[in-house]
Amino acid sequence: MDRNSVKCKIGPSVLNADLSQLYVESQKLLDNGADYLHLDVMDGSFVPNLTFGHPVVKCLRKKIPNAFFETHMMVSDPEMWIEPMADAGVSQYTFHIEPVPQNVLPICRKVREAGMKVGLALKPGTGIEAVRQYIEHADMILIMTVEPGFGGQKFINDMMPKVQWLRHNYPLLDIEVDGGVGLNTINACAEAGANMIVSGTAIINSADQKAVIASLRETVESSIHKCNV
Amino acid sequence: MDRNSVKCKIGPSVLNADLSQLYVESQKLLDNGADYLHLDVMDGSFVPNLTFGHPVVKCLRKKIPNAFFETHMMVSDPEMWIEPMADAGVSQYTFHIEPVPQNVLPICRKVREAGMKVGLALKPGTGIEAVRQYIEHADMILIMTVEPGFGGQKFINDMMPKVQWLRHNYPLLDIEVDGGVGLNTINACAEAGANMIVSGTAIINSADQKAVIASLRETVESSIHKCNV
Repeated sequence: MDRNSVKCKIGPSVLNADLSQLYVESQKLLDNGADYLHLDVMDGSFVPNLTFGHPVVKCLRKKIPNAFFETHMMVSDPEMWIEPMADAGVSQYTFHIEPVPQNVLPICRKVREAGMKVGLALKPGTGIEAVRQYIEHADMILIMTVEPGFGGQKFINDMMPKVQWLRHNYPLLDIEVDGGVGLNTINACAEAGANMIVSGTAIINSADQKAVIASLRETVESSIHKCNV
Repeated sequence: MDRNSVKCKIGPSVLNADLSQLYVESQKLLDNGADYLHLDVMDGSFVPNLTFGHPVVKCLRKKIPNAFFETHMMVSDPEMWIEPMADAGVSQYTFHIEPVPQNVLPICRKVREAGMKVGLALKPGTGIEAVRQYIEHADMILIMTVEPGFGGQKFINDMMPKVQWLRHNYPLLDIEVDGGVGLNTINACAEAGANMIVSGTAIINSADQKAVIASLRETVESSIHKCNV
């Protein structure tokens, strides 16, 4: 693999894990090869589901001091949770641009000032042009491959042109996909150029998490390698 | 104790417990004598905190099939979560009347139709007259003794007249207090007539949960007994 290429990272989503024992489930994922944890924060307003917020993340961080925590902020007021999430020990704060069209850059700045990496997320209906002007201010772009809100949905293949466009124009950008990503859909993601892979039920519901994570990784690394030779 | 009197029930709040192992914390509370669990659901809109929602409660219910679960819905749209919370196995759905002044009765009816008991909650600034007309439609009235949103706050003694008024007029009503309730404030609650006692940090942070729960219970039962002789 090229020294200057992007790295494949697998970030399981705990959304469909047993949330009554989040630490146990999270540690198991890390022990099985997860590179980071993708934590789905939903407020019932931006999406019609209510999962968990910073008090839960803070408790999890106390038990897992070192892993990379990405919070995917499916909330209508992403600015509101920057300080609480930084205080909770979040590594990367990924927020949707849709509810804050006039305010993306100030929020990026505040996230960074709070000591977290910046992720920008796009719903399936949001075109890539909406994020174009902000890419240089972000560490990562998340292309949602389902409507955000619930786990276990069907992957929308039509999102792949967004990933391709990003990879073509930003060879070193971290590009994440999230929603319906598993062994049957990882090929499309990898070929389009995604390097950060969120996978929920495909990993959580598997009897062999380690094998699924390894297989997802192999497909992505193989694509990265092909692009570099 | 009179056969026809209210019963003392101690319902610890898990808000300040280790939310990364909610099942373990909850089972411990039940093993130590809790009569029910008070689950603080916050949406970041009705209160400036975001805790957890029905996906978490549903996972907890799977592990604890039989305990009485009360969800304290600190949310701006209480109607929205009736079905999801019923599906999650909630026993009692306690919602605030403040965000839905025109809609209390229809929501009471829907909660009941969904198979749950009905609780009505009042913030400290809400007078008892606001709930008066709905009391006969509810199973329980919750008098908040702190501003809802965070654990560990100082008990507002000025709320006791509301409890007294309720107990005087409704001798058999379940009356709950929540906020800053512990060994130093239980006397006031018990004498005013509260019989359902939510207590968070006072129980959670104690090295001897069983002793604290027993002591809270003793104070309340002693007050109930006095009223009946």
